[in-house]
Formats: sequence, C-alpha cells, structure tokens
Amino acid sequence: MSEDEADRDGGPDGANDDFESVLSRVRDRIDPDADERARLRAVAETLTERAEDAATDLAPGADVLQVGSSARGTWISGDRDIDVFVRFPPELDRETLEEYGLEVGHDTVPDGHEEYAEHPYVKGEVEGFDVDVVPCFRLGSATEIRSAVDRTPFHNRYLEERLDEELAADVRLAKQFLKGIGAYGSDLRTSGFSGYLTELLVAEYGGFRPLLEAAADWQPPVELDPEDHGRASFSDPLIVIDPTDPERNVAAVCAAENVARLQHYAREFLASPSVDFFEPREPEPLTAAALRDRLADREATAMAVRFEAPDLVDDQLYPQLRKSLEGIVGGLDDRGFDVLRADTFADETAAVFAELAVAERPAIERHLGPPIHVRDHAEGFYDAYDDDPDVYGPFIDGDRYVAERKRDCTTARGYLESDRLFDVGLGAHVETALEEGYDVLVGDETTALLPEFDRQLGAYFDPRP
Amino acid sequence: MSEDEADRDGGPDGANDDFESVLSRVRDRIDPDADERARLRAVAETLTERAEDAATDLAPGADVLQVGSSARGTWISGDRDIDVFVRFPPELDRETLEEYGLEVGHDTVPDGHEEYAEHPYVKGEVEGFDVDVVPCFRLGSATEIRSAVDRTPFHNRYLEERLDEELAADVRLAKQFLKGIGAYGSDLRTSGFSGYLTELLVAEYGGFRPLLEAAADWQPPVELDPEDHGRASFSDPLIVIDPTDPERNVAAVCAAENVARLQHYAREFLASPSVDFFEPREPEPLTAAALRDRLADREATAMAVRFEAPDLVDDQLYPQLRKSLEGIVGGLDDRGFDVLRADTFADETAAVFAELAVAERPAIERHLGPPIHVRDHAEGFYDAYDDDPDVYGPFIDGDRYVAERKRDCTTARGYLESDRLFDVGLGAHVETALEEGYDVLVGDETTALLPEFDRQLGAYFDPRP
Repeated sequence: MSEDEADRDGGPDGANDDFESVLSRVRDRIDPDADERARLRAVAETLTERAEDAATDLAPGADVLQVGSSARGTWISGDRDIDVFVRFPPELDRETLEEYGLEVGHDTVPDGHEEYAEHPYVKGEVEGFDVDVVPCFRLGSATEIRSAVDRTPFHNRYLEERLDEELAADVRLAKQFLKGIGAYGSDLRTSGFSGYLTELLVAEYGGFRPLLEAAADWQPPVELDPEDHGRASFSDPLIVIDPTDPERNVAAVCAAENVARLQHYAREFLASPSVDFFEPREPEPLTAAALRDRLADREATAMAVRFEAPDLVDDQLYPQLRKSLEGIVGGLDDRGFDVLRADTFADETAAVFAELAVAERPAIERHLGPPIHVRDHAEGFYDAYDDDPDVYGPFIDGDRYVAERKRDCTTARGYLESDRLFDVGLGAHVETALEEGYDVLVGDETTALLPEFDRQLGAYFDPRP
Repeated sequence: MSEDEADRDGGPDGANDDFESVLSRVRDRIDPDADERARLRAVAETLTERAEDAATDLAPGADVLQVGSSARGTWISGDRDIDVFVRFPPELDRETLEEYGLEVGHDTVPDGHEEYAEHPYVKGEVEGFDVDVVPCFRLGSATEIRSAVDRTPFHNRYLEERLDEELAADVRLAKQFLKGIGAYGSDLRTSGFSGYLTELLVAEYGGFRPLLEAAADWQPPVELDPEDHGRASFSDPLIVIDPTDPERNVAAVCAAENVARLQHYAREFLASPSVDFFEPREPEPLTAAALRDRLADREATAMAVRFEAPDLVDDQLYPQLRKSLEGIVGGLDDRGFDVLRADTFADETAAVFAELAVAERPAIERHLGPPIHVRDHAEGFYDAYDDDPDVYGPFIDGDRYVAERKRDCTTARGYLESDRLFDVGLGAHVETALEEGYDVLVGDETTALLPEFDRQLGAYFDPRP
C-alpha cells in the first residue's frame, strides 16, 4: 500500500481529522480570496463592456452575459477561465451571427485566435485570464435553442437563482472532490461529472455533504428532475433532467464507472475524512524493471499493439481508442485468448495494452455443428468436414455434430499480427493508423512502451477505484 | 480416412450395392436357418414342460410362457438366449413367489445359479443355450404390475399379435443395424435402443426401411403412442409410450446421442447402402507412438485421472463414471482449464481422460465483486480485499468492484492432484476409489494408459458419429 493510500484510509494525516476540519482545510486552498475575486471581477467587467460596445454597434438588440463558474462564484481558486457570451437577436441568420461573433471576439480579446466548436468563437488571454468570447442567439426559452451554446445562458440564469454564497462554496468542494477522485469533467476522455451537473447536484441535494450522503446510497438508475418536467426516458445510471430542457439528461456523458466511483469515495470519505480525497492521485511512473517484476508476479502474458497516435483532439481520439480496445479485446476473447485486463494509452504513439490469461491455444478447436435433426444444415456440415483429413470427426455430442478442426491462429501474437485484426470494430482513424503499420509487443517486449506510458502503466498495475 | 470408413461411404464394396441386395446379404447372415429354429424350438419346449411341471406342483394356478426374441422369432442367428417366464397367481405373497421361482428355476436348469435383478431368478446353460427362468405374477393388465418383470408377458403378447414373419425379419435387420452403429442395448453403458423398443418401432412404422426413412427426418422430441393412450409427459428426445402402460416411455433410457446416431446412419445408409453398416466398428488399438503423435498433432494437453475400477456391474459402474467425468470436467472448466474433449474408460483400472485446451493459468484471477450500489455487499467485498497485499485492486469496472487475487491452482495438474477434486460431484464408489489413491498423468505420461485402454483411446482419437 502506498503512502497516499495509507493517508486516505486514515493514516497519520487523516486519523484525527473530522469532516468539518477537513473541509475547512480544503476551503482554505480552493476558495478564491477577496483579492482574486476583485481581480476577476475587474477583468470581467472590462471584457463585458468591450464586448457590449462592439456588439451593439453591430446589432442594436445584442447584449452580453458573463457565464460559467467565474460568473457564478463557483470557480476554484487559480482557475482562470472567463466565459463571455454575446447574445444576438434571433432574427439574425447564422452566417451573420458567426461573422458578428468573431468581430466582437477580436475587439474584446485583441490577441485572441479563432476556435471552432459548434460555432466559431474567439479565445485568448487577457491579464492572465483565459477568455472565451462566444456568440449565441437570445431566445425566449431553452426549448427554442438552435445549438448547444444557446442553452448556456439559461443554465446560467437557473443556477444564479439557486446558488447562494454557501451553496457556491459547496459546489467548489464538490468539484474539487470529483477532481480528486478522477471523476470530474464531461470531456470524452474522462466521461465524468460536468461543472453544470455538479452545480445542479449540489443545488438539488442542498450541499456537498448531503450530496455525498445521497450518493453513498444511490441505487442506479438514479433519476433527478429538479423542475419535475422530464418527458423522455434514459438508460443511463444517473439521470438529471436539465431544468431548462425536459428532454435532456445532463449526466448523459457520465459513465457508470464514474457514478460508482463517486459512490465509493463518498462512503470512504464520510467514514474517514481526509484532505487527500481532494488531491488527484498522480500515479507513480513505472520503470522497466518494475514492469518486468509485475509481469512475472502476475504470470499473465502482456501484449501491446502500438501505432502512431491519430492526430485528433481528445474528444475524438479517446472514443476511437476505446472502440478499438473493445474490438481487439473482443477479437482475442472470441479466439479463446482470454483477456485478463486491458487499457489504451495515447501520447505520441498510442497503444492497446492487454494482459492475457491464455496466449496459446491447441492446433485444433471444437466446432459445434447444427442439431442432427435440422437435416439440411446437418448434412451440409457433415459433408463439409467428413472428407477433410485435417479434421477429427464429425462426431455426435448430444444432438449435434461436432468437428475438431485446425485453428486459424494458435497464438495471440499470430492473431494480432494477422489481417484478422482488421475484422473487429476499430475507430476509423485508428484503423487508418494501423494500416500504416503497428508493432506487436509480447511479454517483456512491452517495456518498449516506457518511458512514454510510464504513468499509465503505473496506474494500470496499481489499480484503484 | 480408414478403409472401413471408405466402404461405408461407397467404396469398392458399397458403390454398386442397392438397398435390397444389401439387405439380402445381411439376412443371409442374421436370419436363423430352419435347423437353428428347430433346435431352439425343441430346447424351448423341453424347458417349458419342465418348468410347467415344477410350477404347477407348487401352485396349481401357475403357467409358463416363453418370452423374448427367441419366442417371437426376432432373434439374430447365433443368439442363444431363451427366456422362460413362470407366472404365479397374484394371491401369492412375494416371498413365496421368490421361493417358488427359484425352485422351478433349479428344476428347469439343473446346472443353473441364482442371480438378482428386481427378483432373484435362475440362469444357466442348457444344450448350448443361455436360459433365464424368471418368476412373475399373472395379472389381468399391465397397469397392475408389481415389478418390471410382470410387464414382460404383456409386452410379449402385444408383439406376438403384431409381428408376422416379414416384420420379424425386419426387426432382425433393425437390431443388427443398431448393433452395427453402436446404438443397440438399453444397458446403462450403451444407453441405446432396447430389443422391445426396436420391435415396437419396426411394428409401428411397418418395417425396417420405413423406420429408417422416418428416423432420417425425425424432429425430436419424437412421440409415438401405438395405443394412443399416453397420459404422462416426458422430456426425452424419443418418446414411445408403452402399449401396455400409458405412463411409461419405452425409450426413456435412450440417450440423445443414440437418437441422433440412428438419424445420421439412417441417412447415410439410405444414401449409399452397404453391409458395413451392420458390422460393429472395432476401433484400432492405439500404440504409444501413435498416441504421442496424436497429442503432438493436436497440441492440447492430455490429462488422465486413473484409479482402481470399483467392483460394480456395468449398469452401476458406467453411470458413476459418467457422473465423475462430468464433475471433473466441470471442475476443470470452472477454473479456466478449458476441456477440449473428455471420456471415461474402465477395465481393471478406470480413468477419466481429458484433453485440455488450457492447462495453465496466470498467478492471478479476476474476481468480480458486487455492484457498488449494493452497499452492504460492496463494502464487505472492498474491505475484504483492500488491505490484502497479494491483491491488485479492488478497482471499478462498470458498476462493480473487481479484485485480482491469487489463484488456488495455476495448473490443471495441481488442481487434479489437490483435495479440491473431491468438491465436485463424483459417483459414490468412484469417490471411494479415488480416496484410496489415484494417478494424475499429464501429456505423454498418458501412454501409461496403454495397452489397457488401447481400443478406447483408438476410438477417442478417431471419433465417428
């Protein structure tokens, strides 16, 4: 057990901490002080004025909103994001909206550059803050939205009305807790709790502690509907109906693992509070010698498929890597190469790493034929194998024919190195990357993944909730 | 492909045979000639007279019946069984019946000895024939029977009324065909078609060829009810309601394999008739060199558990061996030692022989815990493994905890040599025999099963329908 783990379970730092004193120490670290608040407010006001001037010059009906955690006082000390939303009248066509939006952005953030999400917008640095200037339509209700950004002002208004100073402080604690346990972020690499979701949960349960106490006892699917207006059904483990949109689950992106993770750590933290829960775990980098030790200790056969990482943003890359991981694991399992555990990593190269409980199979495999009473199929099967000198059988087992025939691949390496790898579902860009070439590493050869993936492999071999 | 197989598929002997000429050649061999019939009739009459004299001396209401294939003209030339049933009035108590039965038996077969099935009876040789003298009650209908033997006279009467000379000849063909394909006999080693069942099927379908044509197209469950009086339901693949007992399936003992086997060979024979179908296949004995070759060719890991054969009759021994086979295969499979195929053999020693696709596993195994939302179980699981230095995890997969813990056995040999072998279902006498000691043979060590099981292993490595 590492020191880090010892602390969490109530080691020297944690044993005598009680809940409130832990929160108080965390607050000291994450609550922005008066100075930080004042600086942020000053910069935000300047930006809002600049944007308003530019926007109303272009469209008299435009206005400007500061949104996001910095607008609602829910940001964590040190976060330096300011989101400025410029709302244009809905009569504007989309092309004009985008043109005006960029113009306002450049006027507001003179050194900014353009980025593209659903719309183009301007991003840049102003007095040490990371500023986004995003155009949207000003609409009467969230159900009229034309794109996801149009929803943000409604989210902002809803939360501003519900989060007082005390709840805002609890939102900060909840965010930091989720960061600490690795479940914060709605990006598709994390698939965790978004900021908006965290704020809704704290508002709905009435604070950080009530949220933890509720989560510890959640029985998924958990369904929350703050406005009691939901009218769609969802299959997610956590369902939080958007107060501004009855057909949207705010927690749709939150994976079952992250719901379970919150449940686990809520219980652990309530049982023995410690500030360590609020610190993201940094996995120890694994050395080649340590990797060899782990492989020898576990006696599984490690394998990796390594290729050049596709040049994609994380939100595109990680879903493709996970699809490829699932496909390759499925291909291995289907051929009897039992996968014990697997993961996927990306940096300059990308890798699907797997440990196999079974890496070799006999020369033959059992091939179960049709029931003998299904005459056409049965005769077809029998005739297909009866004269094959490489086949044992066909013979009868129960009411079916069985033939023992030669396998395509008797080793997992052989399978991974063959074209059959391309028969499984792979992300499109991963498939292209593999077509360019890839390495198959087996056993101690996987040390070639170091040092590039030393922290990922460190985490792999020291798995935690 | 062996020569034997070539013939069956229409080789030199079979290619030009047509159905009727094949049957005619088989009949020449299996139909008893006039001389054999006369000899049997003479002996049977003598026995019947002797039994009648002895029986009526003891109980005036007694009578004597000759039953079985020799009574109905359905015996195969060379079979030398004569069954004499002595029927006593139902007023007799069972003890007196048994006493009288043995007395009549000894008077009828002076050199006979006593055997015990449901009742004691006398068995012995008379002029080269194997004679059974069996006592039973004379009852008004088969539904009044007190034991299985009381049913026999009713079976006999039913078939005598239905089998003319021609059908009796077809019964002989059907029996010989079932012997040839290894599906004849209701003993618990074969679990095949009994003589009575065969006669009923021929009578019901109206001959050997109609039986084959029907069987080729059977869609199990196949239900025949010659007297249209069945009033129980059965889960067997072949259901033939006993014409003398509406609650009995005459084919209850017939395994799915043997139903399928008849279907398979009926099709093959109708497609290319050959006398070879009527000859039981004698598997080639396997030499040690050939066994090693087969093992090398298949690349599976052969294993055998060998022990002293329990001293039981086949009808008790084989069900116990099969139960033990199933238990041991299940135990291996459950631990990830995938069994490719397995069989059990008995002679002086007995063996469970298995080929494993996987004979070794890693030092650790994945242990799936409860869903995290089932709080009591989840906390119990987590606490049980969290502090164990030999365990990787617990971590979260989906909504569950997973721990990777050390395995009990990493090799199939280790498992088979351990006491855990006794955790699986074993036949009672097999368990006792194993407690006395057993050998575990792995790989080429299985050549120690030779020459005792050379034919069984010959059949194993040349599997046919």
